[in-house]
Amino acid sequence: MDRLLCFSRRLLPACAAFLLALPPAWGETLSSPGGDLELGFRLSPEGMPFYSLRYKGQAVVEESRLGFVLLPDVAFDRGFSVEEVRFAARDTVWEPVWGQWREIRDCHREMCVRLRQAESGRRLVVRFRLFDDGLGFRYEFPAQEGLRHFMLGEEVTEFRLPGDPVAFWLPGDYDTNEYPTTTSRLSEVAGLIEGVREEPLAVKSAPPGTVVQTPLMLEWPGRLYVNIHEAALLDYPAMQLDLGGRPSDLSAHLVPDKNGVRAYLQGGCVSPWRTVVVSDDARDILASTLILNLNEPCRWEDTSWIRPMKYVGVWWEYFTGQGSTWAYSDERDIRIGQTDYRQLPPNGRHGANTAHVKEYIDFAARHGFDAVLVEGWNEGWEDNRAYLKERIFSFTRPYPDFDVEELSRYAAGKGVELIMHHETMSSAADYERQLPEALRFMRRYGYDVVKTGYVGGVIPRSEYHDGQWMVNHYARVAEMAARHRVMVDSHEAVRPTGLCRTYPNWLAQESARGTEFESFQGIRPDHAAILPFTRLMGGPMDYTPGIFEGDLSQYGPNKGRRSSTLAKQLALYVTMYSPLQMAADLWQNYEKWPDPFQFIKDVAVDWDDTRILEAEPGDYVTIARKEKGRERWFIGGVTDEQGRTACIPLSFLPEGRAFVATIYADGPRAHWQDNPQDIAISTREVSRGDVLRLRLAPGGGVAVSILPAE
Amino acid sequence: MDRLLCFSRRLLPACAAFLLALPPAWGETLSSPGGDLELGFRLSPEGMPFYSLRYKGQAVVEESRLGFVLLPDVAFDRGFSVEEVRFAARDTVWEPVWGQWREIRDCHREMCVRLRQAESGRRLVVRFRLFDDGLGFRYEFPAQEGLRHFMLGEEVTEFRLPGDPVAFWLPGDYDTNEYPTTTSRLSEVAGLIEGVREEPLAVKSAPPGTVVQTPLMLEWPGRLYVNIHEAALLDYPAMQLDLGGRPSDLSAHLVPDKNGVRAYLQGGCVSPWRTVVVSDDARDILASTLILNLNEPCRWEDTSWIRPMKYVGVWWEYFTGQGSTWAYSDERDIRIGQTDYRQLPPNGRHGANTAHVKEYIDFAARHGFDAVLVEGWNEGWEDNRAYLKERIFSFTRPYPDFDVEELSRYAAGKGVELIMHHETMSSAADYERQLPEALRFMRRYGYDVVKTGYVGGVIPRSEYHDGQWMVNHYARVAEMAARHRVMVDSHEAVRPTGLCRTYPNWLAQESARGTEFESFQGIRPDHAAILPFTRLMGGPMDYTPGIFEGDLSQYGPNKGRRSSTLAKQLALYVTMYSPLQMAADLWQNYEKWPDPFQFIKDVAVDWDDTRILEAEPGDYVTIARKEKGRERWFIGGVTDEQGRTACIPLSFLPEGRAFVATIYADGPRAHWQDNPQDIAISTREVSRGDVLRLRLAPGGGVAVSILPAE
Repeated sequence: MDRLLCFSRRLLPACAAFLLALPPAWGETLSSPGGDLELGFRLSPEGMPFYSLRYKGQAVVEESRLGFVLLPDVAFDRGFSVEEVRFAARDTVWEPVWGQWREIRDCHREMCVRLRQAESGRRLVVRFRLFDDGLGFRYEFPAQEGLRHFMLGEEVTEFRLPGDPVAFWLPGDYDTNEYPTTTSRLSEVAGLIEGVREEPLAVKSAPPGTVVQTPLMLEWPGRLYVNIHEAALLDYPAMQLDLGGRPSDLSAHLVPDKNGVRAYLQGGCVSPWRTVVVSDDARDILASTLILNLNEPCRWEDTSWIRPMKYVGVWWEYFTGQGSTWAYSDERDIRIGQTDYRQLPPNGRHGANTAHVKEYIDFAARHGFDAVLVEGWNEGWEDNRAYLKERIFSFTRPYPDFDVEELSRYAAGKGVELIMHHETMSSAADYERQLPEALRFMRRYGYDVVKTGYVGGVIPRSEYHDGQWMVNHYARVAEMAARHRVMVDSHEAVRPTGLCRTYPNWLAQESARGTEFESFQGIRPDHAAILPFTRLMGGPMDYTPGIFEGDLSQYGPNKGRRSSTLAKQLALYVTMYSPLQMAADLWQNYEKWPDPFQFIKDVAVDWDDTRILEAEPGDYVTIARKEKGRERWFIGGVTDEQGRTACIPLSFLPEGRAFVATIYADGPRAHWQDNPQDIAISTREVSRGDVLRLRLAPGGGVAVSILPAE
Repeated sequence: MDRLLCFSRRLLPACAAFLLALPPAWGETLSSPGGDLELGFRLSPEGMPFYSLRYKGQAVVEESRLGFVLLPDVAFDRGFSVEEVRFAARDTVWEPVWGQWREIRDCHREMCVRLRQAESGRRLVVRFRLFDDGLGFRYEFPAQEGLRHFMLGEEVTEFRLPGDPVAFWLPGDYDTNEYPTTTSRLSEVAGLIEGVREEPLAVKSAPPGTVVQTPLMLEWPGRLYVNIHEAALLDYPAMQLDLGGRPSDLSAHLVPDKNGVRAYLQGGCVSPWRTVVVSDDARDILASTLILNLNEPCRWEDTSWIRPMKYVGVWWEYFTGQGSTWAYSDERDIRIGQTDYRQLPPNGRHGANTAHVKEYIDFAARHGFDAVLVEGWNEGWEDNRAYLKERIFSFTRPYPDFDVEELSRYAAGKGVELIMHHETMSSAADYERQLPEALRFMRRYGYDVVKTGYVGGVIPRSEYHDGQWMVNHYARVAEMAARHRVMVDSHEAVRPTGLCRTYPNWLAQESARGTEFESFQGIRPDHAAILPFTRLMGGPMDYTPGIFEGDLSQYGPNKGRRSSTLAKQLALYVTMYSPLQMAADLWQNYEKWPDPFQFIKDVAVDWDDTRILEAEPGDYVTIARKEKGRERWFIGGVTDEQGRTACIPLSFLPEGRAFVATIYADGPRAHWQDNPQDIAISTREVSRGDVLRLRLAPGGGVAVSILPAE
């Protein structure tokens, strides 16, 4: 760390006798570089540490507790004295391997408080970093004799908020984050949460009490926006938030294992950063780089093999109800390694067959997609019973009708990559066994990306998706994949916390309600205007947009209907940031609607610059982004069930150059329910001085490409 | 299966309506080949299956229940009808890769009862095999729609015994079988068990209620001997036995996971065999081959790489109190893969250093041992905290002072093997991750045998040592090792059930209170006369005998004293059967006592024939064995704290040949407490007509080698 400013106040001499004699009450403050934020830290007379946060003079976090309960029932949140406080500051710029900006500025001030429990002699460090966009703080457990290996019973970190803000929340759950978001006052959560929990999902494990998930977006309407989450979640459970006696008194609720232990730690470790992003302008929340700045730099020296990409895949047909199956056979008595698939009768509806995959490869080549995802290529789908069965899949045995060698050759000949799929059904124990061989298998056939899946209950059966053990598992997969130069796109894993900075081969995650739900219970129109403020705060989402045929009853028994206009599907390629973007629909639908498809073909997946033009959580989001290395801009705007007019000044364009804007707008009669396919595509010359005023239909959106005029 | 006799009684037509109309009560019997045993099977009017067993007309198992409770709370032990009964018989001979006999006869009659629950339609099969030495039966779950994947809540199998037999029992425990054995009437167990549980052991997890472990040896003094255990434990939890309302009513208590589930099963699977070995002569219990016969044949086509062996090792010095350590350093803040051991200060007491290992290699070469075990060769021992730490050891990173390459070269040059040690501290999750690379590492340096260890609580933290998941883990290790032509000697794993027939590279296990306890709380003199009837019923034990210096206060602060005479240490090489035998003491002690050491050098580890000459559980055991392929016999006799005279007719010797017997007997004043080193070694010519009468001291033993006279 290049400390531009670094000094320490050693408050106490080494003499322990004197230490004990000191009055433990003590306080200190820290200001953000720009001065809008002020952090307070105080030790109560009982030696309990507290922090508070103010923004432009108003309280953001009222005085809130810090510390832990260690097992069995050892208080590690009181009886502290301050041994030392060190201040530091930093102002540097770093370049992500890929991202929303070519460069990211890390400008913060730091206060590091070293605490010591007089009675036990145990030491604890709290490190605060204050940026202009918010606060990050973490705990550090120095290596020490009395804290060599220990179990966390609870983290007592509080976030005591003023008033009764509006929250955009998911019910707390140890195993899933696929609930729809509910918008309500915090005081209303307790009354609503049981109803929300009725949502049918593949696996659910509700914590006791009234608990919500992070990233938690909060709004004091017209006044303040706050996002609470965490950064650099490694070797620690995910943090959820408990709404205590007073609903605005949030406190950390760590995902435990099934034995009730929150974490197994070794002295010398650190907690993830607790993050509080703050502004009085909602756009600043989306523009925040605080979470990335709190993550460690990239671990891989060579990142030349990591690259953003657009892909299509054998995927959506499994959801449409047209009968295509992941499974090769209808036989269900399957034992991986024993069942001889060549003896099984094929069901005739298997999606991932060689000829069909070639159609997708041809389509990708025709339209310039980088890659084709294939789900259902490997043995095991017939009997994919999560939790009860430990070895469900083989990750090295293709189905008899999936010619892995021929397809590799064919795809390479067309300049298209294949993306491998590893659905684990959350049998992480078995996945870890197979992974080394599976990665070698991928390399042998030239696969550079794996999409992992974690549907269902976890094996080891002591674990939840968002607990410490699985957090370690996901990171381990990213690390092992990197050793084989493989990129990862994880689905149903713990939600991201900016680790893509450290592991840039971990391109994207799902970890929220994605497009697949358009074929289940549906997605509410405000979803796309919420996710950037919640799920996406932690990192890119493989949302898999681009569903052109929104009426699934076209295909068969599924009566699902896409809950957005067609133009909004295009806008998502800009508003739902990801370096890995899918065009999720059946390829035939793109050739059926070639004009809107042109936007998906054009849109970039890596960026030099990003401008948050308009944003209100749950209402609308408008974002402009400049393609990396090229003078091409793409704009996406989405709205909730209310129509609106987006106002887009093109002041980000360079002086004195002419551009052609292609505008993919909702048609005049467009409406997400009644007329979702109505799209109006127009072209006009634009330049820096122009302001686009674009009408978004209810549940609609708009996409614009701005390319240099030739 | 070569059925010499095979016919079926199809009792019921396929018509389901008729099935339901049939009275469900029904009975059938089966006799053993020799006629001494009779099995009864009966379906009660409620459709509950019962079995019973008689031996020479007296009850061994009174009418006892069969069946299961499935989760959540589904009765699978009643409402059955009999669909079909098939009878079969077999009389064959097979050759084990190694063993106590060159050939083993499998002669049994079989009754296979196919049951169907009228209401649920679910099917269950019970397969009985009756041998002259006892009964085996198992459950089979046919693949069926209503039972594709299911969880066992309990197995209700009962063993209702007559009267109140004497039992040789360990308290039930999900994590350890290192308790001393208690001898008492079954009715006394409940009153004694809490006291026995106070034994300090590395990890203990007591089940609720009064539960004992198997193999459970039972004796109706002067009348009947019964051993209850299981065979072929795979993909299923170990069975312990619950002493219900009436203490002689034993019922199966399967080791659960920590979620309370006994097993996760898939239709098409089978349970292990429940075994009841029966005789009115205790010697027949030790001579029984029933458990091996119930295991599947060897899975490996080529077994040329599997061979019994005798070894010494860097091991006992860690227990003696002389200060030698597994750990290289005294630094305790260790992170595997991050800690740079070359930067750590060595503690100067590290046992597994290159020079010291070479001393053992030299010693092994000098005295004809096959191999040298080295514990403490690898990174991690400084901070080996089980359960709290998941990655404790590296299995591919030797300590800086252990030159793995040089030692491989050196050992090979001397014709000696090195045995690798993998202490997992029960972090099976991490061991499975490292194992593929660890096995490649072993092959690279020419290691053919691995000693595994499972001290402490298990990770995954849902699991116990003896539950289904760990049972699968141990088998997986044996299988993976076999793929690399590696033999396994597991310590602290679930006790064996004859799987060494199927996996003959799984040479031996500890899984009981072994010699190391001589340096802790001690071993009772009757131990060696009990283990053959209990622990060894399932398979070979790496008991690690041969402690010549029994007074540990010679070395330092350890006040431990070996609880046997010196001659008894020699006898154990014959009475504690194992194809892998250690001479466990410091090498210097063997050169200090060269005369008794000669027996250890001479004794074989693989056998053509075994004769159980004398045996009473808990009192004494005398066994003669013929070395495989050579006309050399070795006899071992052990007694409890009572002195006795062993009477050994040499009628097993071939006619007309002269032999020289070297008798390693307790000296005239020998006593395990007061005079344990007194040994009298004598030589005499013997032949078939002779009878040896040999005096065993209290806590003593005798060993005899009988070699052809030259």
